[in-house]
Amino acid sequence: MKKLRMATPGPTYVPQDILLAGAQELVHHRSSHMEEVMSQINGSLPLLFGTEQKVFTLLSSGTGAMEAAVANCFQEQDKVLVVSNGYFGERFADISRVYGVTPIEIASLWGTSVDMEQVEKAYHEHPDVRGILVVYSETSTGVTNDIQRIAAFFRDKNVLVIVDAISGLLSHELHMDEWGLDVVLAASHKGFMMPPGLAFVSISEKAWQRLEQIEPKTYYFSFKRFKKFYPMSPSSPGVSLIFALQASIEMLMKEGLQECCQRHHWNAQAAQAGLAALGFELFVADPQRRSHTVTTAIAPQGLDTSKLLQILSSKYGMTITGGQGEFKGKMIRVGHIGSVDILDLFTVFGAIELALTEMGASFTKGASIAAIQEIQERSVYHADFVST
Amino acid sequence: MKKLRMATPGPTYVPQDILLAGAQELVHHRSSHMEEVMSQINGSLPLLFGTEQKVFTLLSSGTGAMEAAVANCFQEQDKVLVVSNGYFGERFADISRVYGVTPIEIASLWGTSVDMEQVEKAYHEHPDVRGILVVYSETSTGVTNDIQRIAAFFRDKNVLVIVDAISGLLSHELHMDEWGLDVVLAASHKGFMMPPGLAFVSISEKAWQRLEQIEPKTYYFSFKRFKKFYPMSPSSPGVSLIFALQASIEMLMKEGLQECCQRHHWNAQAAQAGLAALGFELFVADPQRRSHTVTTAIAPQGLDTSKLLQILSSKYGMTITGGQGEFKGKMIRVGHIGSVDILDLFTVFGAIELALTEMGASFTKGASIAAIQEIQERSVYHADFVST
Repeated sequence: MKKLRMATPGPTYVPQDILLAGAQELVHHRSSHMEEVMSQINGSLPLLFGTEQKVFTLLSSGTGAMEAAVANCFQEQDKVLVVSNGYFGERFADISRVYGVTPIEIASLWGTSVDMEQVEKAYHEHPDVRGILVVYSETSTGVTNDIQRIAAFFRDKNVLVIVDAISGLLSHELHMDEWGLDVVLAASHKGFMMPPGLAFVSISEKAWQRLEQIEPKTYYFSFKRFKKFYPMSPSSPGVSLIFALQASIEMLMKEGLQECCQRHHWNAQAAQAGLAALGFELFVADPQRRSHTVTTAIAPQGLDTSKLLQILSSKYGMTITGGQGEFKGKMIRVGHIGSVDILDLFTVFGAIELALTEMGASFTKGASIAAIQEIQERSVYHADFVST
Repeated sequence: MKKLRMATPGPTYVPQDILLAGAQELVHHRSSHMEEVMSQINGSLPLLFGTEQKVFTLLSSGTGAMEAAVANCFQEQDKVLVVSNGYFGERFADISRVYGVTPIEIASLWGTSVDMEQVEKAYHEHPDVRGILVVYSETSTGVTNDIQRIAAFFRDKNVLVIVDAISGLLSHELHMDEWGLDVVLAASHKGFMMPPGLAFVSISEKAWQRLEQIEPKTYYFSFKRFKKFYPMSPSSPGVSLIFALQASIEMLMKEGLQECCQRHHWNAQAAQAGLAALGFELFVADPQRRSHTVTTAIAPQGLDTSKLLQILSSKYGMTITGGQGEFKGKMIRVGHIGSVDILDLFTVFGAIELALTEMGASFTKGASIAAIQEIQERSVYHADFVST
């Protein structure tokens, strides 16, 4: 028996309750039963986004939601600022170009958060931009961008703040209305602990004012169509995934949103401590800007992470991803998003230690596990565990 | 206990084997395990389409696939012919307009198949069209269009034949390469007997030649990206739905493709006989052009189908859809696509008879059931049933 495991920043482990909820007998997507289901979901989703706006459920991956935001909010020849400090920021720029929208990229080194001064400078150089596209939690680098400060700066300007919170939602605090975010995107296979397939979009009043003046360059992803058909879906919705979403929301509400974010925070600190104890150098220098979804680190000199990850996958069935581009072979990205707790991290780091031993790496056996235990002793969760 | 049932042309009943396959533990979408799964699926799907081309698996509803075809194959200011004899034909025209593509609509009465002479005439009037968009099985009207003849006419012309086979595939014969179809679209919640969520696209060499010269006006649905990432998916794929697809393909292969189409044909004949026996008038006059996925019929004078369907839904939990637009209240559309056999139709028609009695309609109790039995006695399936 070879058990397959993942420690990736989504897709992530899906609890059986959610998997089985998705295996229920289907109902027709225009039936009164489906209307009840959608009403319940539509009542809960805004709480997760911290908004009084509607949240639309799309049938697509997160990339589809990113495209939807661009296709609905902007027009050919518009200019937008794009925060580019990771793979998904770059994707925002690529998508913009497809729609004839010019991305002004605000680049910062991978592993660093975008500098607010740079954002302000870019805006003053291009005061005619219609939006800023920013990724909250960049899973490619393990860094978060300060969307709260960015949104505060643009709140009184004619600029829409579009936030990819695909991995950031439910793992980090996010208050859409309070912070003044205009379009917030999320996806099912991240903090929702679900299989991939659903994406979520919420739209501020400020964004609707712009949207209403634009003919969206998309039919399937048209926000106007979503609004028209709300609370139902304009096309066939992913009924089985929506049943899974019901179970996901129930679990999230039971845990509590703040508690869920805190758990992700402790997971991140545990993974950071584990990697540091094995001689890895954390990739994100600023502790405040480390993602709660994935911990990135550079291997000790001479250790090939491609080889390490290959052993983990082929020998132990454990999928962990590495760095891309110039970081290939040097970086490890340990994911801990969704239904993950400290005990899961013992499994992950135990496997990493086994693989390191096989590679002849120099480290103290059990060091990462000990470091994680020390984090756990300081964690609020230590005392809060309640048998159910 | 109120059992919920559907007799709709998709979503349709999903067999437990497929539901549970979709509830398996997830694997990472870039893992070697997923590569094996995709290779197996990619090996089988072309057989269902009758093609030697690749079949791409999209994470979207069928509408997403329709949009993908338009966004990839055509450019702003292109002209296309659109066969318009139902709701989905009209949708093709709507989507074209979003992309600045001018649809030349070849309209024919709902319930009739497009006339080949009209198609030829439209082409001769607009010899500069770059494509023809046609729905194989129009579930809104219950009619099929003769895509084989249409494709034969355009085979040697600079016109791409784009076929919405979303409900038509697996219920009617379709041989993409032999018939010369250029882009064929399908979706999971129809003949595949799956939940909604996956769509499928196959593309001819002739279409690729055009595609390669065009910058697609979409990122998420870009066929070039699908080709580049094949056999894997460019964005996060619907992993749980792909597991369900494995089970679906296995069931389809076990039954046999020809047998599956024949079963749908017999189902259609049974539904036609059942409705006729209750005094309904079949909406599609030409027996050769009646869809195998849904049977449409006009109620006897004075019978309100909206009321009938409302009783079926609220009292018996049976979802059947009615007519749209001018046919609201007059038409019934009995779906029989996917995992449906004659015995299922006894349930459907038994419920219809109960509801008719409640409405005080005049008919002979059991008449539809008797008519279905007579069809079954002539069916090849009568002798072929094998206990498993």
